[in-house]
Amino acid sequence: MTTGGMLTGSHGCLVGISKPTMFTGASAMFLLIYLALWKYHDSTNPLLASASSLPGDESRLLPGAHSPRDFLEQVMSCDLDEPEKENVMLIKNESMPIIYFVTPTYARSVQMAELTRLGQTLSSVPALHWILVEDASKCNPMVGQLLRRLGIPFTHLASEMPAAYKKLKTPPRGVSNRRAALKWIRKNVKQGVLYFGDDDNSYDLRLFEEIRDTRNISMFPVGLIGDYAVSAPVVHDGKVVGFYDSWPAGRRFAVDMAGFAVNIQLLHQFPNATFIYQAGFEEDSFLQDIVTNADFIEAKAANCTEILVWHTRTVQVPAVILQPPTQTLTDTSISGLLRRLDDLQLATISSKGKPSSVHYLTDV
Amino acid sequence: MTTGGMLTGSHGCLVGISKPTMFTGASAMFLLIYLALWKYHDSTNPLLASASSLPGDESRLLPGAHSPRDFLEQVMSCDLDEPEKENVMLIKNESMPIIYFVTPTYARSVQMAELTRLGQTLSSVPALHWILVEDASKCNPMVGQLLRRLGIPFTHLASEMPAAYKKLKTPPRGVSNRRAALKWIRKNVKQGVLYFGDDDNSYDLRLFEEIRDTRNISMFPVGLIGDYAVSAPVVHDGKVVGFYDSWPAGRRFAVDMAGFAVNIQLLHQFPNATFIYQAGFEEDSFLQDIVTNADFIEAKAANCTEILVWHTRTVQVPAVILQPPTQTLTDTSISGLLRRLDDLQLATISSKGKPSSVHYLTDV
Repeated sequence: MTTGGMLTGSHGCLVGISKPTMFTGASAMFLLIYLALWKYHDSTNPLLASASSLPGDESRLLPGAHSPRDFLEQVMSCDLDEPEKENVMLIKNESMPIIYFVTPTYARSVQMAELTRLGQTLSSVPALHWILVEDASKCNPMVGQLLRRLGIPFTHLASEMPAAYKKLKTPPRGVSNRRAALKWIRKNVKQGVLYFGDDDNSYDLRLFEEIRDTRNISMFPVGLIGDYAVSAPVVHDGKVVGFYDSWPAGRRFAVDMAGFAVNIQLLHQFPNATFIYQAGFEEDSFLQDIVTNADFIEAKAANCTEILVWHTRTVQVPAVILQPPTQTLTDTSISGLLRRLDDLQLATISSKGKPSSVHYLTDV
Repeated sequence: MTTGGMLTGSHGCLVGISKPTMFTGASAMFLLIYLALWKYHDSTNPLLASASSLPGDESRLLPGAHSPRDFLEQVMSCDLDEPEKENVMLIKNESMPIIYFVTPTYARSVQMAELTRLGQTLSSVPALHWILVEDASKCNPMVGQLLRRLGIPFTHLASEMPAAYKKLKTPPRGVSNRRAALKWIRKNVKQGVLYFGDDDNSYDLRLFEEIRDTRNISMFPVGLIGDYAVSAPVVHDGKVVGFYDSWPAGRRFAVDMAGFAVNIQLLHQFPNATFIYQAGFEEDSFLQDIVTNADFIEAKAANCTEILVWHTRTVQVPAVILQPPTQTLTDTSISGLLRRLDDLQLATISSKGKPSSVHYLTDV
């Protein structure tokens, strides 16, 4: 396996090796068949797994001119003014393992609302380092401002989905971001616990104390997933013996991305373990790489009977194109407000947009 | 106006006077016409305003055999073991006005996830008292457990929508709950700040410090509302002179329920001010009752150019009816998990439900 030459130097920006991928029509067709078979495809959050139901080992290999494990992404470190190492060093709590909470994110009108809400939840968790990875060619300064304001130790990266995947009808979102986070952790962190937490899930704060003592891999139920309203490990005599998930799809580990946590020493034991660009099978491929013995799995959340994380989804709203009101009094707050809407990706302000107007109080 | 005989005694339960409402076919038709004209009706969250665009004062009067201001609801106090007064007394911070955060809520599969997420956000806010009002005939013990676990001072009430309104195609949700909260506050609280915060909105923690010094009424923008992606007061020379909202609809105060806060002394100055059962006009009717002079409105959030609260909406998922797996090993976690799904209203367990199965790890 080649891992590419990603560089996440402390002041680095736009560093990495991009391998052009060669997609044939046949491979695109193969992926479309996958998608048609996906049973509970989540159309409102493209970050989430979308998938095939092709069983067996062949489903783990993505057709194409490259190895599915090649590192294809460009990664940008966004902490230009604050060397990453400094952020890492902010936490020196030797009595408690640090949780590295990895969140892939992408630009949309609800993004800042969701990141604000999630970030505020995370700011209540002791000894947590947030690794936020944008699927973007450059870093969004609003996201950087939010991270600095929250006061959580963080790493802010950008890693765009390689162009070849963007052409697919349902692009495999979140893979590029999570791979970039794995690379960053392997380079910068020796120990702690890794958890993948999407920006629209809901987390009960008790989850963090459950996963903090993960020795190898811990697993637990995720609410609001699929046709069973849950995806959960099944525990017998204290051991995980199977999975209760309405979409087994030939997966050995039929779990959601939010349903497991990993001790970072295990990442170093398996330096090639990664996510492949195959919608719906990301969790399974990664876990097959690192779980050599099912006895290593630790059941959390009251032997997997409690729900401490929920796959909530937010209604997506398209950004609007707005024409500023013509009848506005001079020096009102409207111009500042419209600039803010633009910054927040809620609206684009244009003379060709939808006309907008102010309703004045009658006694003005 | 008659205010009814609601009783929220400290150990009280199911106390109040219900006035039967007489709905004629004509009044139902009148409301249906309202709804047909609603421009950005929020079909996914029935708690939110749904409305008419009939302008003028007549739109503020609900047709029917009773006065729209009559108190119709039964209110149940859910803090059976903990007298309300004790909860109120938990906060004795004389240096800081207490924020009374009122949340109407109703049973659905995402409810516990949303209340957990919101409650954790509120637990970061000093001097806040959460008034949670279920639209239900009895209190949900899971909600009570959550409230006690969070450690926030709270009041837990239930106030079901009167039967006559339930028959409407789009029932006016959240009115009964908010009216019950107003009554409770008027009875139990002398001073502080009132804010109406739905369970699916997203709150920037900075909002709470903005509204805490509200002298009369404060107003501020709400993101992700309507066709302008925002509903915001317009400020000129430091004063609120109008509203930027894509659905003015003849409203004097074209604001969202999350866009204003009220000093509780004002509630006592206007003891009859309330919400009427008229979808889309709740905010306007209440504000017209208490805002006698527009100069009293205080512009918050950087003169109404910052967005500190977002009208995010959560995708609603129906609860499933599940048949327990037949091939389950004895003494697995499945039975405990299924009981939990039932408690959380994620699933109903029934032998007539959708068959479900466990996928066992091959090496078990």
